[in-house]
Amino acid sequence: MILDSAESVEFTKENIYEFIHDIWDNHVPFHKHINQKIINFDKDSCEISLKKTDNLIIDISTQRLHGGVIASILDNTGALLALTNFIEQFDSTDINYIIKQSQKIGTLDLNINYLSPGSGDEFISKGKVIRRSKRLVLAEMTLYDENDVLVATATGKYMIK
Amino acid sequence: MILDSAESVEFTKENIYEFIHDIWDNHVPFHKHINQKIINFDKDSCEISLKKTDNLIIDISTQRLHGGVIASILDNTGALLALTNFIEQFDSTDINYIIKQSQKIGTLDLNINYLSPGSGDEFISKGKVIRRSKRLVLAEMTLYDENDVLVATATGKYMIK
Amino acid sequence: MILDSAESVEFTKENIYEFIHDIWDNHVPFHKHINQKIINFDKDSCEISLKKTDNLIIDISTQRLHGGVIASILDNTGALLALTNFIEQFDSTDINYIIKQSQKIGTLDLNINYLSPGSGDEFISKGKVIRRSKRLVLAEMTLYDENDVLVATATGKYMIK
Amino acid sequence: MILDSAESVEFTKENIYEFIHDIWDNHVPFHKHINQKIINFDKDSCEISLKKTDNLIIDISTQRLHGGVIASILDNTGALLALTNFIEQFDSTDINYIIKQSQKIGTLDLNINYLSPGSGDEFISKGKVIRRSKRLVLAEMTLYDENDVLVATATGKYMIK
Repeated sequence: MILDSAESVEFTKENIYEFIHDIWDNHVPFHKHINQKIINFDKDSCEISLKKTDNLIIDISTQRLHGGVIASILDNTGALLALTNFIEQFDSTDINYIIKQSQKIGTLDLNINYLSPGSGDEFISKGKVIRRSKRLVLAEMTLYDENDVLVATATGKYMIK
Repeated sequence: MILDSAESVEFTKENIYEFIHDIWDNHVPFHKHINQKIINFDKDSCEISLKKTDNLIIDISTQRLHGGVIASILDNTGALLALTNFIEQFDSTDINYIIKQSQKIGTLDLNINYLSPGSGDEFISKGKVIRRSKRLVLAEMTLYDENDVLVATATGKYMIK
Repeated sequence: MILDSAESVEFTKENIYEFIHDIWDNHVPFHKHINQKIINFDKDSCEISLKKTDNLIIDISTQRLHGGVIASILDNTGALLALTNFIEQFDSTDINYIIKQSQKIGTLDLNINYLSPGSGDEFISKGKVIRRSKRLVLAEMTLYDENDVLVATATGKYMIK
Repeated sequence: MILDSAESVEFTKENIYEFIHDIWDNHVPFHKHINQKIINFDKDSCEISLKKTDNLIIDISTQRLHGGVIASILDNTGALLALTNFIEQFDSTDINYIIKQSQKIGTLDLNINYLSPGSGDEFISKGKVIRRSKRLVLAEMTLYDENDVLVATATGKYMIK
């Protein structure tokens, strides 16, 4: 992603979390494109926020958030949990190794139930881990708007090759 | 969306299809934001294309299409089929009525299986209707890249209130 | 199901719940075939138990509960919640009317994640309603064994025509 | 399942297929309990039939097949494909080894869309492999009745530990 050195660069665990936070908020192009920011995360649960902008809506008259944006933030929420869990398993603080391994992680599936139109202005996606194993993380996600309306629920599976 | 008149404006069926095509490609903010274009559509099947841009990727080194973009185009593909089916059922050529009714359509669910990383540059999403009823359309979608790699499959349900 | 009279037969709400309980435990052929019993239910949540018998396993050596049995009890759990919700909406205590309307209820979809082999002897499926509307109930279900091992989670949608 | 010997017992590939066919039809307790029979199978596709009996229905008046039975045969169809694919990968003709390895296969998930009530008397479930890898098989299944009514569609993922 950012570091390209083939050399080993040791990080503390705290550094790793800060590094992920920075990468996800500032250096993943599509994350910036949909205006999302991590609120907090660890290996068990996480929260991501998203502020609605004009680019993210379905139509001008209803101003609802597009379902694809909802899918995107829900997927990112599960993926962040998966990333954190796999990194805990790597048992390495060499950030170049971690980056390389992280690129082997992918979404296996995503099942979304849309419950309410995304009529709010700010949204928070919350995720928790349901099951983790060596190669697979199953996460459950919910998306609420600023008025605590439940917009969508989802499950996602994330694998490492 | 575009027309706001409370008056009845009669369209031919062909006009309606052209109108949808224009709205979807040029006036849905998020559709432009993810660079998608309708190739063709009728009530049974449709195709939508998407050209990868720098904003739509996960990370700069692998250049893969973000899973949320994949979810978005798959959802749009099913939604276009649902829209077309419900419009056929409205049995009206009054475009203002059609617009108003169309805003009652929403995605009920979306189940995606991710099969390959989105490593291509151009993607085509194909959808077909599996079941249609008065209030519900079930669609199956697939996403291929320009090298005929199957990137993802999905099903979606779309309801009208 | 049991009553066939075309005449109106008035029940109290309590009678209706007892009637459903009796029908489900004793007169739905497949419910008896998989040895399930309702523990409790209302319109928000319910619990169903299942005792493993020789007929319900995959293979003699591992004695695990068959995945189809797991799917069955999870589906039944969501369906019981849907039935209860729709009956509350019928706003009728005429049991013949209720029976007739109930036969219009069907499972729309069922998404199951299998988390552990069904190695226990007794299983409890718990369900709760996530969203209810006039025609649709979305329920979330979990299946635990007698040692509190989480065997499976699921969501189901139930519609009334 | 049947053979318990720790000794190596060599089979031809044809023997293995016959062995699976026999086990599945005659020695899996729940398969007999729901009256299913394999029609044919190889590593790419398979067909399983099911004759409705009094035990497999929801209620006596409508005589519809229970949704749990539908889930069961759909799951079995995907599982048979997964079993066949993993056995091809084991690259062994030692039946005791194959049996032992096969017991490590499990359903990861099952997503079913119910399209029509199971009003027929005989049902055929057809499955095909969408994606296979070393540890994972993704299969798509459909269930038709004897009048070619599409009763349900499903996808399932199957893993080997």
